[in-house]
Amino acid sequence: MTNKYVYFFGANQTEGKAEMRELLGGKGANLAEMANLGINVPPGFTLTTEACTYYFQKKQKLPTSLWNEVLDNLKTLEKAMGKEFGGADEPLLVSVRSGSRASMPGMMDTVLNLGLNPDTLEGLAGKTGDGRFAYDCYRRFISMFGNVVLGIEGEHFEKILHRKKTKQKVEFDTELGVGDLKVVIKDFKALVKRKTGKPFPDQPMDQLKLAVEAVFSSWNTDRAVTYRRLNRIPDDWGTAVNVQSMVYGNMGPTSATGVAFTRNPATGENKFYGEYMINAQGEDVVAGIRTPNPIEQLEKDMPEVFETLTGIYKTLESHYKDMQDIEFTVQENQLYMLQTRSGKRTAAAAIRVAVDMVNEGLISKREAILRVPATQVDQIFHPMVDPKANVKVLGKGLGASPGAATGKVVFTPEHAMELSKKKERVILVRMETSPEDIHGMSVAQGILTAKGGMTSHAAVVARAMGKPCVSGLGELLVEPRKKRATLNGVVLKELDPITLDGTTGQVMQGQVPLTQPRVTSYFRQLMVWADKMRRLNVRANADTPHDALVAREFGAQGIGLCRTEHMFFNEERILLVRKMIISDKPKVREEAIKKLLPIQRSDFLQIFKVMNGLPVTIRLLDPPLHEFLPGAPAEIKILAKQMRVPATQLTQKIDSMKEQNPMLGLRGCRLGIVFPEIYEMQVRAIIEAACKLVKKGNKVLPEIMVPLVSHVNEFKFVRSRIDAVAEEVIGKSDVKLDYKVGTMIELPRAAVTADEIALEADFFSFGTNDLTQTALGLSRDDAGAFLSRYLENGVLMEDPFVSVDQKGVGALVAMAIEKGRAANKKLHLGICGEHGGDPASIEFFHQLGLDYVSCSPYRVPTALLSAAQAAVQIPAP
Amino acid sequence: MTNKYVYFFGANQTEGKAEMRELLGGKGANLAEMANLGINVPPGFTLTTEACTYYFQKKQKLPTSLWNEVLDNLKTLEKAMGKEFGGADEPLLVSVRSGSRASMPGMMDTVLNLGLNPDTLEGLAGKTGDGRFAYDCYRRFISMFGNVVLGIEGEHFEKILHRKKTKQKVEFDTELGVGDLKVVIKDFKALVKRKTGKPFPDQPMDQLKLAVEAVFSSWNTDRAVTYRRLNRIPDDWGTAVNVQSMVYGNMGPTSATGVAFTRNPATGENKFYGEYMINAQGEDVVAGIRTPNPIEQLEKDMPEVFETLTGIYKTLESHYKDMQDIEFTVQENQLYMLQTRSGKRTAAAAIRVAVDMVNEGLISKREAILRVPATQVDQIFHPMVDPKANVKVLGKGLGASPGAATGKVVFTPEHAMELSKKKERVILVRMETSPEDIHGMSVAQGILTAKGGMTSHAAVVARAMGKPCVSGLGELLVEPRKKRATLNGVVLKELDPITLDGTTGQVMQGQVPLTQPRVTSYFRQLMVWADKMRRLNVRANADTPHDALVAREFGAQGIGLCRTEHMFFNEERILLVRKMIISDKPKVREEAIKKLLPIQRSDFLQIFKVMNGLPVTIRLLDPPLHEFLPGAPAEIKILAKQMRVPATQLTQKIDSMKEQNPMLGLRGCRLGIVFPEIYEMQVRAIIEAACKLVKKGNKVLPEIMVPLVSHVNEFKFVRSRIDAVAEEVIGKSDVKLDYKVGTMIELPRAAVTADEIALEADFFSFGTNDLTQTALGLSRDDAGAFLSRYLENGVLMEDPFVSVDQKGVGALVAMAIEKGRAANKKLHLGICGEHGGDPASIEFFHQLGLDYVSCSPYRVPTALLSAAQAAVQIPAP
Repeated sequence: MTNKYVYFFGANQTEGKAEMRELLGGKGANLAEMANLGINVPPGFTLTTEACTYYFQKKQKLPTSLWNEVLDNLKTLEKAMGKEFGGADEPLLVSVRSGSRASMPGMMDTVLNLGLNPDTLEGLAGKTGDGRFAYDCYRRFISMFGNVVLGIEGEHFEKILHRKKTKQKVEFDTELGVGDLKVVIKDFKALVKRKTGKPFPDQPMDQLKLAVEAVFSSWNTDRAVTYRRLNRIPDDWGTAVNVQSMVYGNMGPTSATGVAFTRNPATGENKFYGEYMINAQGEDVVAGIRTPNPIEQLEKDMPEVFETLTGIYKTLESHYKDMQDIEFTVQENQLYMLQTRSGKRTAAAAIRVAVDMVNEGLISKREAILRVPATQVDQIFHPMVDPKANVKVLGKGLGASPGAATGKVVFTPEHAMELSKKKERVILVRMETSPEDIHGMSVAQGILTAKGGMTSHAAVVARAMGKPCVSGLGELLVEPRKKRATLNGVVLKELDPITLDGTTGQVMQGQVPLTQPRVTSYFRQLMVWADKMRRLNVRANADTPHDALVAREFGAQGIGLCRTEHMFFNEERILLVRKMIISDKPKVREEAIKKLLPIQRSDFLQIFKVMNGLPVTIRLLDPPLHEFLPGAPAEIKILAKQMRVPATQLTQKIDSMKEQNPMLGLRGCRLGIVFPEIYEMQVRAIIEAACKLVKKGNKVLPEIMVPLVSHVNEFKFVRSRIDAVAEEVIGKSDVKLDYKVGTMIELPRAAVTADEIALEADFFSFGTNDLTQTALGLSRDDAGAFLSRYLENGVLMEDPFVSVDQKGVGALVAMAIEKGRAANKKLHLGICGEHGGDPASIEFFHQLGLDYVSCSPYRVPTALLSAAQAAVQIPAP
Repeated sequence: MTNKYVYFFGANQTEGKAEMRELLGGKGANLAEMANLGINVPPGFTLTTEACTYYFQKKQKLPTSLWNEVLDNLKTLEKAMGKEFGGADEPLLVSVRSGSRASMPGMMDTVLNLGLNPDTLEGLAGKTGDGRFAYDCYRRFISMFGNVVLGIEGEHFEKILHRKKTKQKVEFDTELGVGDLKVVIKDFKALVKRKTGKPFPDQPMDQLKLAVEAVFSSWNTDRAVTYRRLNRIPDDWGTAVNVQSMVYGNMGPTSATGVAFTRNPATGENKFYGEYMINAQGEDVVAGIRTPNPIEQLEKDMPEVFETLTGIYKTLESHYKDMQDIEFTVQENQLYMLQTRSGKRTAAAAIRVAVDMVNEGLISKREAILRVPATQVDQIFHPMVDPKANVKVLGKGLGASPGAATGKVVFTPEHAMELSKKKERVILVRMETSPEDIHGMSVAQGILTAKGGMTSHAAVVARAMGKPCVSGLGELLVEPRKKRATLNGVVLKELDPITLDGTTGQVMQGQVPLTQPRVTSYFRQLMVWADKMRRLNVRANADTPHDALVAREFGAQGIGLCRTEHMFFNEERILLVRKMIISDKPKVREEAIKKLLPIQRSDFLQIFKVMNGLPVTIRLLDPPLHEFLPGAPAEIKILAKQMRVPATQLTQKIDSMKEQNPMLGLRGCRLGIVFPEIYEMQVRAIIEAACKLVKKGNKVLPEIMVPLVSHVNEFKFVRSRIDAVAEEVIGKSDVKLDYKVGTMIELPRAAVTADEIALEADFFSFGTNDLTQTALGLSRDDAGAFLSRYLENGVLMEDPFVSVDQKGVGALVAMAIEKGRAANKKLHLGICGEHGGDPASIEFFHQLGLDYVSCSPYRVPTALLSAAQAAVQIPAP
């Protein structure tokens, strides 16, 4: 019952295949698969990931049976190659490479030419008839082995080589002769002796064993562990080791080496794409001494090889049914494939390749849907930094709203407004933004803040506006009064040009050229397929007719969240709003509300028009009132004059309205209970607008949403007033209008008592932003200070404001769905938090059986695709 | 299958009994019970609460069978009394009274002399031989009926009467003759006609029907509804109506009326206690024209009656096994009992009565435990306003910490300190308090704040200190700079004397005399019994050796919450704390921490000493760091000098640490993860102190508690460091010390994922304050603004910070207990929020199967008693 730990691959005998990726790692499985397909790969064998797992479980001991298997496989390999490992005449040399299931930087990569020693060296020289080639291989082997297996820093070897070149007065390694190389080799060996206390291992078997253990051990280096944590790769996967016979692309003009993609990885065009070099090794390509040739030229240089290669790439693509990234070596006109794997590509390329492959009959539409990473989709809707541009990066914050923007630095929203009237492009730079900055944000090209996370005010508003934003750039200090900011020692003055990349979080000096991507017919085709597959509906969070229009164009099936408060910040309205909030005199308050009614009604009228035939969920006033209050003394003066009260008295009143924790204060439906007249005005505006349009023949589906309910009595209190106003208006209008009244589920108590609330509500919309804040006790505005530390040290694996915390917040959502549906079969369920645009969260919500997700307009395509992917992968509950 | 709606009571025939309280109401059931016991009650009958319920269910229609039953019962009554209802010769007159299950002010109370009209009036006059008596009865009846049944305001009747007295130049009603009364009666009737549009109903049957309906209707007056809401009486209980033949205590020197308690309701002394008046009606006692006589004197005035009464009260007490509050009337030497009910009493009396009754063999110890309302127990530990004192109440806030205090007004903690050094008694008056005020609070006699609810900073700290506090007094405006405050128009200047009652929330002008209650042997006895019965342990929240000592004396079985942050506010320490927090230089921070270590160690040493043999749960640093930061420019200057940085730079740093929602910010274990060195210092101090005492032979049981955990990884991260430090210190000390490490469960996510956390933790302590804040999304500091509105309009029935919200927060606690215990059988469970001292919450926690509750030291007796009551009433889970 001993495990089999080693799998052979080669022309005559191959034990593995592509499906054995978990056991053999990606590289090993694909080498075996290529051998199975009759493609010429240098033969070799793979030590399994199970051997690695064993190695760590048994405190770094290899399985006893392993080495016997290795010896058996070596014999097979010797036979296949007609060479002998350690043999002086026909020495077999091998490469040793790691290869885990997922590509993983940070681990030991490669040792080439293993098996060389003073004896086999002569054999290699004799065999190839090229002494210089053999000595060059030997010195490369010693330094590579010394570095990656014995742990001696590479620079020590570099220094010896450099000294020799200086002494010989040559520039390149290739100019060193055999004699020089012999001296270098001697010095290299002395270095190894000095550093390790032992001579360089000459026994090929010792070399192999050490190299295998080094690969295994590299699985647990700090860098590898950190990488796994960041990419959520389980520690217990382990890595495989590939031992493969050496081939050489540097054995003269009939040899070559190259890399290629079966299609264009940038555009997706179905055209072989890559480059190669004659008489070169992989290393040489990297060193950049010569410029590689485009792959097309190989047809002229080596027509037979090119034909074979073309055949192979076509075979591989139709076999793997995906665009491949391949590596090859030509040794004396003989083509060897060294690697094939799924090729990395841009979003645009991913979309085109997927659609093309469906049309070519290679994959199904369902497969095509899964081929495009939903996280990348919004790349194609935003300008990007031109990849060819030279940039000077000043700092890196959070990529809070995707796309790139360039413009002049301004520090106040007022200044942004002023310059935008002169058609200047500006970037608004703030410590953090608040609702009072919205007019400035709306005219800026992009927003940069020092504080705040992925769901800070700046981030949320920017995403809703489809505007690039970099937030949480801790090193940034903004001093608006001094009209300057400092970022990692660089002073940014007013009107200095800068460029933001809201996708990567980078801030760059000066005006960097941008590319303007566009929506392709490929994307449209993909979305048609996606729409047919998905079960989850997708709505948009939109507060203005413009947002609603964008959302509808992107395919939104309604508005899931229309925040009425954003309508209040308009310059002419804010004074009325402030009067309504501040005045102790019922009459002043009443008057302000009366004046707001027609304004709100016209807001809703326009949105309903745009969304004709689709549902529009309108949330009644939600934020803490003090958000609307004036802060600057000048603003207070204006309001005081208007209200005919002393400014000092007004200031006192404003101060008294300040809250310790506004997030948990007088907001949401609490406003509607303390000031019923505000909600009544809003409901009147909604229903009057709806009735007016219904009369004109429009189809209006208003859904009135009550925020921040924690107790069913709150909902009952507010709903009874909503229904009273609505029925009165509908009665007067003499039309038929169906409206719904529902609630946000955004407090843990609401989730826990969802059964009670469901009996009274027509729908639930999960506000997962606030639910995350309250369930985790985490203010999104303040979490930046420690959340990054949590992610660094692995306390959390991801930002719970970006991807929904399934075990905590998700469990509350699941509980509310179960209780809600049990109490009210007709209950309609959606989610309108920022998570509505996150693919991982969408998959989760699909699984929970929600009816829809709602996200910012620019996220709608991502959500549509994610919903389809979830439906393809997971059966509906 | 028609219901029986009417029950008769009287000497010969009684259909009801005490157990039928739900059906007959308290008064009706007890009248029937007395009749059953052979006690002389004026016969009558009771209309059931079911008739009332029917009345409301059927839109104010009486059951059809009801009136026939009433007529039958009237006949029986007529026969029993030998009188005729509406009869001109021997008229039967009745009283009509409401009587619900629970005593309920706000409802229609009583109509006397019903059945009088011009005909029966003559009969009454003839029968009693007293024309004036009859006319007086009649005018009383008309005004009473006119007021409570017909809804005419009493003042209109008063006016007529007053006019007549003025005209006749007499002072008292009794001085009006028959002629005068006839005029008054005429005017009364004219008034009724004018107000109701109908003549005053002369038909006794009409009178009765109207009165019955009026009683039923009064169940739903606004006042009654509000009272029920406030006292959590269900709306569907309904009220009964008692129709009872009239007896008169005002028929000459052989008649009398009186009220008495079977024991002293103030002290509990087992001595008949009450007062009576010869030739008087109940009304006359209230009118205060004559001073009533002490009950002892009745023995001399009416020896036979007294003997009968003594027999009755003994019968009643031994029958009901409780102290009774009785009403009686003597009509011409014949004693009638009008009412008996359980007597209201002070906490001290309740305790003494309960203990005495056990000793007298009347009740069991378990019954005795239930006889003392746990909510009242802490009355006996606090000074109270002398009930005899004349007070001028300036305003009423929340009774946030019980007891009364008197002293001079001060507006700053510094001023409080200064005066307290001069042995002055001061009251600290603030808009709200913050941790920086603690030193001032600790020297003040009491605390008064304009803002904040029952769990505001002021309230929590005051309760922990056992100091009276009135909070949330909205009408109070404090202007410390102007050295004055205004309260409902009264200006309070610095050093003005005021008095607070933290039990009722009243603020009184000047220095009001206080009484100093003391702990009696009765109480000690009761607590001995309680200790044997309860299952739930009781610990105290104590931060200082003094608090710990108080707690232990009150019977606490350990410390459930020792808040280390309160130790940081001491004058000499705060500078070190500030340095530790603010400095960006690791060295400065390290030095500050090093200096804090011995200070913290000595804190813990003293507490451990006091609590020798009992567990002490120490919570690691929890609050947002900015709470420790200096706010005043002068303080900033001092710190800047000490730290050798410019004050402007320091101010900037402090500003940058301000959080939008500190409650949800960088606090709790987040501090321990971002600044591990702070927690490490605290753990070192705890374990070093414990080891030192163990060496001296003490028994130390430290429990280290990690606050604000939401994810198991946070706990694992912190625990691994705690264990490392603890093991190092224990190893060095060479003693055996068992310590536990557990966590607060105070965030909904922790409750939802309690199974994961339980695997890593030794104990959970539910922090129901923060759990309430997060589950309900409700900042306790800001909730005052709308919570009162919620309670007023019935959206909430009680303040969730006072009594735990069982459906929401309670469900999360229950979930965490279930998940936690399932994952870890050894898990120890307690609660340390403010709810730990609330009887209703303690009962709930007992039901959930917690191991202990922890509350402020002065609440310990309440909690001990509550725990015993819960154990008596509810079997352990």
